[in-house]
Amino acid sequence: MKRLVVVAALVSALPALADEGMWTYNNFPAAKVKEKYGFEPSQQWLDKVRLSSARLAGGCSASFVSPNGLVMTNHHCARGCVEQLSTADKDFIANGFYAKSQQEEVQCPAMEVNQLTDITDVTDRLNKATQGLTGKQYADTLKAEMAKVEKECATSDEVRCDVVTLYQGGQYNLYKYRRFQDVRLVFAPEHAIAFFGGDPDNFEFPRYDLDVSFVRVYQDGKPATTENYFPWSKAGAKEGELTFVSGNPGRTSRGLTVAELEYQRDVAMPKQLMALAEFRGMINEYQKRGPEQQRTSNNMKFGVENAFKAIKGREEALLDKKFFASKVADEQALRQKVAANPEMKKKYGAAWDEIAKAEEQLKNIRTELNYLEQGQGFSSQLFNIAKSLVRASEELPKPNGERLREYNDANQPAFKAQLFSPAPIYPELEIARLEFSLTKLREELGPDHPFVKKVLGKESPLTLATRVVNGTQLRDPKVREQLFKGGKQAIAASQDPMIKLAQLVEPDSRAVRKNFEENIESVIRKNSELVAKAKFEVYGTNVYPDATFSPRVSYGAVQGYMENGKKVSPITYMSGTFERHTGEDPFALPKSWLDAKGKLKLTTPMDFVTTNDIIGGNSGSPMINKNAEIVGLVFDGNIQSLGGDFGFDESVNRTVAVHSDAILEALQKVYGATRVIDELRPSKQPGVNAKPAR
Amino acid sequence: MKRLVVVAALVSALPALADEGMWTYNNFPAAKVKEKYGFEPSQQWLDKVRLSSARLAGGCSASFVSPNGLVMTNHHCARGCVEQLSTADKDFIANGFYAKSQQEEVQCPAMEVNQLTDITDVTDRLNKATQGLTGKQYADTLKAEMAKVEKECATSDEVRCDVVTLYQGGQYNLYKYRRFQDVRLVFAPEHAIAFFGGDPDNFEFPRYDLDVSFVRVYQDGKPATTENYFPWSKAGAKEGELTFVSGNPGRTSRGLTVAELEYQRDVAMPKQLMALAEFRGMINEYQKRGPEQQRTSNNMKFGVENAFKAIKGREEALLDKKFFASKVADEQALRQKVAANPEMKKKYGAAWDEIAKAEEQLKNIRTELNYLEQGQGFSSQLFNIAKSLVRASEELPKPNGERLREYNDANQPAFKAQLFSPAPIYPELEIARLEFSLTKLREELGPDHPFVKKVLGKESPLTLATRVVNGTQLRDPKVREQLFKGGKQAIAASQDPMIKLAQLVEPDSRAVRKNFEENIESVIRKNSELVAKAKFEVYGTNVYPDATFSPRVSYGAVQGYMENGKKVSPITYMSGTFERHTGEDPFALPKSWLDAKGKLKLTTPMDFVTTNDIIGGNSGSPMINKNAEIVGLVFDGNIQSLGGDFGFDESVNRTVAVHSDAILEALQKVYGATRVIDELRPSKQPGVNAKPAR
Repeated sequence: MKRLVVVAALVSALPALADEGMWTYNNFPAAKVKEKYGFEPSQQWLDKVRLSSARLAGGCSASFVSPNGLVMTNHHCARGCVEQLSTADKDFIANGFYAKSQQEEVQCPAMEVNQLTDITDVTDRLNKATQGLTGKQYADTLKAEMAKVEKECATSDEVRCDVVTLYQGGQYNLYKYRRFQDVRLVFAPEHAIAFFGGDPDNFEFPRYDLDVSFVRVYQDGKPATTENYFPWSKAGAKEGELTFVSGNPGRTSRGLTVAELEYQRDVAMPKQLMALAEFRGMINEYQKRGPEQQRTSNNMKFGVENAFKAIKGREEALLDKKFFASKVADEQALRQKVAANPEMKKKYGAAWDEIAKAEEQLKNIRTELNYLEQGQGFSSQLFNIAKSLVRASEELPKPNGERLREYNDANQPAFKAQLFSPAPIYPELEIARLEFSLTKLREELGPDHPFVKKVLGKESPLTLATRVVNGTQLRDPKVREQLFKGGKQAIAASQDPMIKLAQLVEPDSRAVRKNFEENIESVIRKNSELVAKAKFEVYGTNVYPDATFSPRVSYGAVQGYMENGKKVSPITYMSGTFERHTGEDPFALPKSWLDAKGKLKLTTPMDFVTTNDIIGGNSGSPMINKNAEIVGLVFDGNIQSLGGDFGFDESVNRTVAVHSDAILEALQKVYGATRVIDELRPSKQPGVNAKPAR
Repeated sequence: MKRLVVVAALVSALPALADEGMWTYNNFPAAKVKEKYGFEPSQQWLDKVRLSSARLAGGCSASFVSPNGLVMTNHHCARGCVEQLSTADKDFIANGFYAKSQQEEVQCPAMEVNQLTDITDVTDRLNKATQGLTGKQYADTLKAEMAKVEKECATSDEVRCDVVTLYQGGQYNLYKYRRFQDVRLVFAPEHAIAFFGGDPDNFEFPRYDLDVSFVRVYQDGKPATTENYFPWSKAGAKEGELTFVSGNPGRTSRGLTVAELEYQRDVAMPKQLMALAEFRGMINEYQKRGPEQQRTSNNMKFGVENAFKAIKGREEALLDKKFFASKVADEQALRQKVAANPEMKKKYGAAWDEIAKAEEQLKNIRTELNYLEQGQGFSSQLFNIAKSLVRASEELPKPNGERLREYNDANQPAFKAQLFSPAPIYPELEIARLEFSLTKLREELGPDHPFVKKVLGKESPLTLATRVVNGTQLRDPKVREQLFKGGKQAIAASQDPMIKLAQLVEPDSRAVRKNFEENIESVIRKNSELVAKAKFEVYGTNVYPDATFSPRVSYGAVQGYMENGKKVSPITYMSGTFERHTGEDPFALPKSWLDAKGKLKLTTPMDFVTTNDIIGGNSGSPMINKNAEIVGLVFDGNIQSLGGDFGFDESVNRTVAVHSDAILEALQKVYGATRVIDELRPSKQPGVNAKPAR
């Protein structure tokens, strides 16, 4: 068993130590890297890396690996697409996928790739707009101004613009992306090797997975030309080598106040974990209904188990008394410095208590917020579609700045891609999920809650779920398009039971969201800005912001660690993959690997770990050397990395990657994927700005 | 939504306030009751009440309600028996059960009723035996001396003797029970009315359940004569009336140290809740495999959901910051008093820190303890039988005092009744449970743990579970008897795969238990004794001990409470039962009730609440008035009562009972159960010692 040990890290408070930090491309500690590793990335190097990197809008990272739009990411980042393209007869999850020709590359029903082209600081503009405002006024104005900024920027559907909140509101940056919505599947191995070891090995190391897939971005029906991409490294990663990870860490909470952390530890996480655990028990047993039910729920099972293990690890970090005490001490130290300076005290002194009060209020409404508005009570793709249609009919007629944020003009391309996606929806799974979540809704709010009575009436959760799922027409994207185009009138006239359910839910759902945004979120936002500014004043700005699922770069080295008194070697080899094979899922290798065993060079490095600071969302990130060449593919963190949500401990926190050599070896000898290999040829020329290490 | 509010209660530290306390029959605060309610129970009254009460060894309470061995308890306390007697064709859970004649009363396969006949204080004897000892020596000697005391007392199989640890070891009492192992089912209503409202209404009020059943104890094949029993009250419970509950509260933790509570809050409970939540998700979905799978897993589903809700409520109490702070303050106050007195300091001063150290050690072994030894890794009745057989073959040849406690001579009747019970075991459910628990075993210890490797080998949890469940002969009680009688040799020669699995597990399982008992439990026991003695010295002995699933009596009154600013009336009526009927499970009344609606007096009180201090284990307790007449049947506590594990808050903590009038009305008009009614005639004579209230 592994115990999660997390040491205090004064993130956003003191200059980062060790290899810590998920840095923005415009505030990278190049000098520090040079000091430790003898290589100083130039801004040109950083820009090239940024432009060669990609974000998957669904929640992953990726990289361009050829001039012809070839994109590498994890298998588990493309598995939604792989599953959606599969049928009972053609199961690409089980058997893998390889497009032998460009014509065989198949479009993913709902995948979006983003390339970050520009970063603009809009902090002053937003601060000016909200100056002196609080509560509803603050929230409305901030939302409107963000929408304006994004709309001005988003000149076409091929441009995506997000105002990114950095340092808990200490900075606002406008991130402008090139957007690719035509993404086609090129290669995916079998699930059995991509996720070899399954949930038991997830977030663990040593590992033996080939968690890779390739997709291609298209423009106007042809492979997109991508000037910036990462060439493949000849040598691959070696122990001790300097490595960079360029990706999109989803969320960290290192800058949160103690009140916010307590809320996470004592309220949010325990509730999330219990809900996930129960859902996990349900979905695993659901899989036994039959092979088709298993196939169509595999992706959901994976998502649930992954989330459960990740949150459990984070929860354990916060339950570590010493670690939490260090968080309390850090905050007290900062507050004392603020209190000692009359001017700072006046500006910032009340911020922490204001946040604490808002968190107390949040406790009172969190169940309603989660269950009515945030999907926990209506876990169903069809319900989400109905809700989007109902809401779009209300929101889109409004001026851009007054809409709920996700209905902004700037967000329309992503919204529509999602809404009209032809990805298959499975009614039996929908009923099971919806019944489950309606049962939890009734349990958490109580059967006598007016909303519960309104929704269920005399029906049981199963009766209601069965009626609306079997009765709806929304599985057909054309029906969605008609309702979307028809607007308010079409929605009002619709007799579709799922639309009617969404309409029934809508007023209560909106009300609790409004209450949250105006009375809680706005208070937290406003006062978090103040805390962030206090930190800047006290500790300076040479720090990195918490992760926000926007592109970042981290640095580190290939390095093992100590666990339970034993050294864990940083690199595993293909031979170990075969040693771990038992023949029983999830430790059963696919036939292709067993057949290819004789051909494979078993001393090929398989997976490896580095000290790079990453978090969920970084999955699929390129691992590169100082020449900006691919040496690996990030697919996980070790169990100790989960506490990284709250602080980084270089002694044990590790990024887990597939080795670049393993990818080439497998593509060649297991899959004969020559089309892909030809595009990934190791570069002849060195990367930009490469300097010899000292 | 209800928020659990628990106020500090200095249990075992200061004299109890309000209606607090689960009192022993030999230390009842009669004067306090007189002061508040004008009635002073005499020792004679208390003895009569004790002898009229009963304990179900499986974990419930009950009462004698006729001179001919008729015993009343909850439906949910007898539902194991009801389910075991059912078959796919005759489903007594769904349809209820009524023995129209004595010949139709059917024996429950595994039910034991205990009547507490004598209480002896054996504190001095045990203290002398263990004087000056620590660690393994302390643990071994205490165990041996307890076994000796119990063996001396247990002169036949009809006598059960338990040394009960009171006040965390401040006192040891020998409880001598009359034991009934021939228990037969007389009456049970349909599950739908017994548990009307199901899990959503569990631990809630207002309620509308008829959670009652009747069994009869037999001796030598004939109904046992029971001199002491509770007559039925004519009037039933009225608002404001003084009430007593005589039953067996299972466990409270009011006297635990802060270190022990922190362990519960931060380690044990979160882990338990996640495990239960996942199992719950599994079992609810398992029920969809088919009607027979549903029938055979209903009891398990109920148990899991009940435990989950109960622990969740307790966890919330400990997460209440103010409440926990009060626990910390109480302990500090006591420790300061101890530290201020040199003699006390020497005797008791180190006890708290010793307990804290032991809790830290417990954190390191708890997963192995739970999964290897305490059943979490091998959730299967058949495995438990195999383990009992393997262990009995090792233990029984040893001298009585050296055996593992549950293999003592005094425990043999209960052990054998369990081991040889003909209750049906369902292989499909066994496989599902065992697969689930083996998967958790692998998850919690990791696939590379030597024990996991040893148990699973190259098998998956499903493969292993299927092989051992389908291959074992242990479903047949005769096979068990042969192996039991054959002892070590028979076990060694057995090729039964479940026996082989139990043998494989045994050395590791024993090792972790030994480590726990000698290095952790003994330290906690020893030092808890010291803490208890310190409390006696500082605060006196006029306090009640934590609950230990031994008979206790509590007092209170029929009284409503405030919830979310609204008054909750203390009594519900039959009319409300029909108003809550939706026709969909769990709010669907059985046909018998719908048919009888016209005949029923709808103004009959249905359920009610009182301020009595109870906890899980009290289910089935008689609720009596000062004449020692039945006025109700305890079947639940409200959600606020769950925090009662740690402290009692009279303002909201309520006992929930079925009203005595509802039982009579339903027996008569819904079920025509005249045989039962005839035995329950309201008493003509007043109870012992009754005095008019002031």
